[in-house]
Amino acid sequence: MSMEDYDFLFKIVLIGNAGVGKTCLVRRFTQGLFPPGQGATIGVDFMIKTVEINGEKVKIDHFGFDENHTFQQRYLIADQYWKKGNGPILFYTGNEGDIEWFCNNTGFMWDVAEELNAMLVFAEHRYYGESLPFGNESFSDSKHLNYLTSEQALADFAVLVEYLKATIAGAQRSPVIAIGGSYGGMLAAWFRMKYPHVVVGALAASAPIWQFGDLVPCGTFFSIVTNDFKKSGVGCSESIRNSWNAIYRLSSTDAGLQWLSSTFHLCSPLKTLQDAAVLKNWLSETWVNLAMVNYPYKADFLQPLPAWPIQEVCKFLKDPSLSDKLLLQNVFQAVNLYYNYTGEASCLDVSQTATKSLGEIGWFYQACTEMVMPLCTDGVHDMFEPQKWDFDAFSEECYRMWGVRPRLSWILSMYGGKNISSHSNIIFSNGDLDPWSAGGVTQNITNSLVAVVIPDGAHHLDLRSRNPLDPKSVQQARAMEISLMKEWIKKARHSH
Amino acid sequence: MSMEDYDFLFKIVLIGNAGVGKTCLVRRFTQGLFPPGQGATIGVDFMIKTVEINGEKVKIDHFGFDENHTFQQRYLIADQYWKKGNGPILFYTGNEGDIEWFCNNTGFMWDVAEELNAMLVFAEHRYYGESLPFGNESFSDSKHLNYLTSEQALADFAVLVEYLKATIAGAQRSPVIAIGGSYGGMLAAWFRMKYPHVVVGALAASAPIWQFGDLVPCGTFFSIVTNDFKKSGVGCSESIRNSWNAIYRLSSTDAGLQWLSSTFHLCSPLKTLQDAAVLKNWLSETWVNLAMVNYPYKADFLQPLPAWPIQEVCKFLKDPSLSDKLLLQNVFQAVNLYYNYTGEASCLDVSQTATKSLGEIGWFYQACTEMVMPLCTDGVHDMFEPQKWDFDAFSEECYRMWGVRPRLSWILSMYGGKNISSHSNIIFSNGDLDPWSAGGVTQNITNSLVAVVIPDGAHHLDLRSRNPLDPKSVQQARAMEISLMKEWIKKARHSH
Repeated sequence: MSMEDYDFLFKIVLIGNAGVGKTCLVRRFTQGLFPPGQGATIGVDFMIKTVEINGEKVKIDHFGFDENHTFQQRYLIADQYWKKGNGPILFYTGNEGDIEWFCNNTGFMWDVAEELNAMLVFAEHRYYGESLPFGNESFSDSKHLNYLTSEQALADFAVLVEYLKATIAGAQRSPVIAIGGSYGGMLAAWFRMKYPHVVVGALAASAPIWQFGDLVPCGTFFSIVTNDFKKSGVGCSESIRNSWNAIYRLSSTDAGLQWLSSTFHLCSPLKTLQDAAVLKNWLSETWVNLAMVNYPYKADFLQPLPAWPIQEVCKFLKDPSLSDKLLLQNVFQAVNLYYNYTGEASCLDVSQTATKSLGEIGWFYQACTEMVMPLCTDGVHDMFEPQKWDFDAFSEECYRMWGVRPRLSWILSMYGGKNISSHSNIIFSNGDLDPWSAGGVTQNITNSLVAVVIPDGAHHLDLRSRNPLDPKSVQQARAMEISLMKEWIKKARHSH
Repeated sequence: MSMEDYDFLFKIVLIGNAGVGKTCLVRRFTQGLFPPGQGATIGVDFMIKTVEINGEKVKIDHFGFDENHTFQQRYLIADQYWKKGNGPILFYTGNEGDIEWFCNNTGFMWDVAEELNAMLVFAEHRYYGESLPFGNESFSDSKHLNYLTSEQALADFAVLVEYLKATIAGAQRSPVIAIGGSYGGMLAAWFRMKYPHVVVGALAASAPIWQFGDLVPCGTFFSIVTNDFKKSGVGCSESIRNSWNAIYRLSSTDAGLQWLSSTFHLCSPLKTLQDAAVLKNWLSETWVNLAMVNYPYKADFLQPLPAWPIQEVCKFLKDPSLSDKLLLQNVFQAVNLYYNYTGEASCLDVSQTATKSLGEIGWFYQACTEMVMPLCTDGVHDMFEPQKWDFDAFSEECYRMWGVRPRLSWILSMYGGKNISSHSNIIFSNGDLDPWSAGGVTQNITNSLVAVVIPDGAHHLDLRSRNPLDPKSVQQARAMEISLMKEWIKKARHSH
C-alpha cells in the first residue's frame, strides 16, 4: 500500500468513527462473566451464540436466491432478568465492530434490564467481529464484500429476532425494542422504519441519519468539534488552528520533519511532506475523538482519560501566539494526554486512533458504497485546515481501493432522508457536545418520533452505564427514554 | 422438457394467475393512442419512456455494489390532466407482464385522472414486457434471474418516482399514490409500507398479501371458486366435481383417451394417463380463471366473454348424475364457452390459458423463490380433486427447474404477515367472487388501513373502466377509494 492509500484510509477512519462507540468505556468481556469493579452497576451473564435456523446458518444474501452461501452470525444473550411470557427483549443492533466490545460499552441496557424485566440481546453485524461470512476471505475483493450493506444487516436482525421468538419458550409475545448507538443507532432507527412488525420501537442514540446527501451542511460536524475546544479553555481552538501552518512550515525541511518526529515521539519518523499530511490527519482525528468522548467523568475507552478530557487537553493550549516549535510542543502535550494518560506508551503511532475491536476495513468499504457522509472544513467556522467535500475525488479513491463506486443518493432513497414522519416509536438522542449530532434528529418530528437532547452529552453518553458524575441532563434523558420504552411495551401488551 | 415438467408448469401457472389481471378487459394499446369503442370513458395519450438517471440506466442490483450491470426500465406516462405544481401522480406498480397490457386494463386510473388532476404513470416490472435486464439471456439461468425479486422491483419504483419528481418541472411537490392489482396490488401495498416517504398512500386491489405461510387456510381459494359455481346454477359445481373421476375412468384406455381428445377438440391428442392429468389441470385452471373474471358485463380479456360468464357456463352443467360421456360432453360445452365464445377456435390448446402479455417464466421463478403461495383442495369443501399442499415436493420441483429453493417464510419476515398495523394509508379492495380474496385483507385493520369489500366483484373489478352495468357495490367501492385518495392528497398538500 502506498502512502497515498494510507492517507486515504485516514480520511475514511474519520468517518468510521461515526459508528465507533469509541467513546465508550471498554470493559473486557470474558466468556459471559462481567469483570468486577469497572463501573458496572449490575452484573449480567451473557451467553455467546451463533444463529442457526432449522439447522441452517444465516443466508449471506437475503435479497437473491442464486448465492446459497451461509455464515455464522454471533449474538450475545442474557436472560437473568427476563420475565418469561411477556418481558421485553432489548435488542442491540450491532454496528461496525466486535459485538462483545459494544456489549461492554452499552451499560444502559444492563442497567435497565431488571427494571424492565428484559432479556438482553446483542447481535453482531455481519462482516465484523467473529461474524465473518467468508472467514479470512471476507475482505479480499468486492465480490466477497458484496453482501456488506445495511439492508442485509437489517434483514439478519429481523430473521434473528423471529428465530429467538420462535425458539425461546415464552418469548413469542415479548415486545422487542431495538437499541443502538452511532451507526448502530442508525440501524436501530432504520430497523423500526423497515421492520415495524419486528420491533415495537427503537432507541437511536447519536445516530447521524441525516449526515447524507445535502440534508445538513457538511461543515457543522467540525464546527461542533471546534466549539467543544473553544468552550474548554481560552486560546485552545486558536492554538489548534495555528498548528497546521506551523507543521507545514516545519515539514518543508528534513530537519523540521526530524524535529516533528522526535517532538511527537512518533514510532515511525516522518520522511516526506506527505507523511506530514498523515500527521495532520492523525491530529485532526484525535481532536474529533476527544470531542466524541468528552465525558464528565474519568473513563476508560481506547485509553484511560480524565473527566472532561478536552478541558485537560486545553490546559496545554492556552497561547496560540507562540512560535511554531513552542506551539507544537504544547500540541504534543495535548495529544499525549489522549494517547498516553497512563504514561505507558513508549511512542505514538500515527496509524492508529481507534480500538482494534472496530472493523476498519469493513467500515471503509461501507463508507465507499452506501455510507457516504459529506464532511468539510473551512478553517473559519472551525479550527481545521480548509477541505471541501469532493465527491468525485472520493468516488475515484473508492474505485481505486475497492473497484466500487459510492451511490450518493441511495441511502436517501432507501430510508427517506428528512421525510420520515409516517414512522413511529423512535427516540433520537443526541449530545450537544457530540460532532455527530450535526447529522442527528434534534427536534421532535411527531409525537412518537421524539428527539432527546443532552446539552452536556458527548457521543451516546446516554447508552453508557450510570455514573455518580452523570450530569442531570443525561439522567433526564435516560428517564425519558425508559418512560417511552415502557409506554411501547405497555401498548404492545394491550394489543395482544 | 418432459411431460412431468409440463405438469409442474401448469401447477405454477395456477399460482401465476394471482398477479395476472387476466380478468381485465384487454384493450390493445398502440403507441399512446387509445383505440375507440372499447369501453373507455376517457382517452389518455401515453408516452413510452425508459428510465435513465444522470445518463445511467437502472441498476440491476440495488442491494449490492459488485454487479454494475444496468438495464432499461420502461414506463408509460400521461400528463394531459395533470395540474402542474401539486397535482398528484397515480403510479401503477407494474406486475408480471407487459406494462402496456396493464395500462390497458386499468381504466379506473384513466377514469379518475381528470377529477384528480393527476398524472398517470405505469411502471414496468423488471424481467417483464420490454424491461428485460439481460435481453434474451434474462431467463437463461438462476444467475441471470438473481435480480428478479419484489425488493428489487420496489427499489426500481422508488428510484423512478424520485427521478420523475426531480426531472419533471412542477412535479417536485406532487403527492404520489401507488395503485396496483393482484401481484401489482401487493407491490402497491408493500411500496407504501417500505417507502412511505415516496408514496403518500396505496390502493392495493385484489392483493392476496396473506396468501403466504400459514396466514390463511390453503383451501379457501378453491372453495371460493366452488361457491361461485354453486351459486350460478343448480348442479353446476357437482357436475364439475364428478367430472374428475369420469376423466380418470376414460383415460385408462386408449379408446377413452381418443374419445376425450376428440370430444374436447384438443389440438394435440392425449396419449397417456399423464396427458389426462394435464387435461385436468387445464380444466381446473379454466374454472379458476372463470371465477377471477366473473364480471357483470360482457368483457373482452383473453377471449370475449358474456356477462356473468359462470352463469352461462353453468347452463351446460345442470345434471351431475349423467353418465361419464354425457357429463364430459357438457364439460366441453362449458370450457368451449370460455375458449371459443366467438366460434373462431378450430381446436383447444391445453398448454395455454393466459394471455401472452404475461411473463409466465418470470412468474414461475418468482413462485419458486419468494412468492410461495400455499394452495390446496380436499374435494369436500371444493369441487376439485383433493391435493394437499406439499412444500417439500414443491421445493424439489423448483430446485430441479431453476436450481433454487423457495424461502417459505421470507415474505413474512420482509413484509410483516398479519402484523402490519403500524403502517398507514393503504386501501385493500377485494371482491367476494374473487378466489384471491382468500388471501386478501377484507376487514379494516386501523382507521387508515382500510378494507373495501365488493360483494359482486371478481378479480380487481374496481380497477376496470366504469361500465353502465357496474353493480352498485363496485361504484361504492370506487367512490370510497377516490374519497380516501383525495384525503391523502389534501393532507400531503397541507404538510408542505
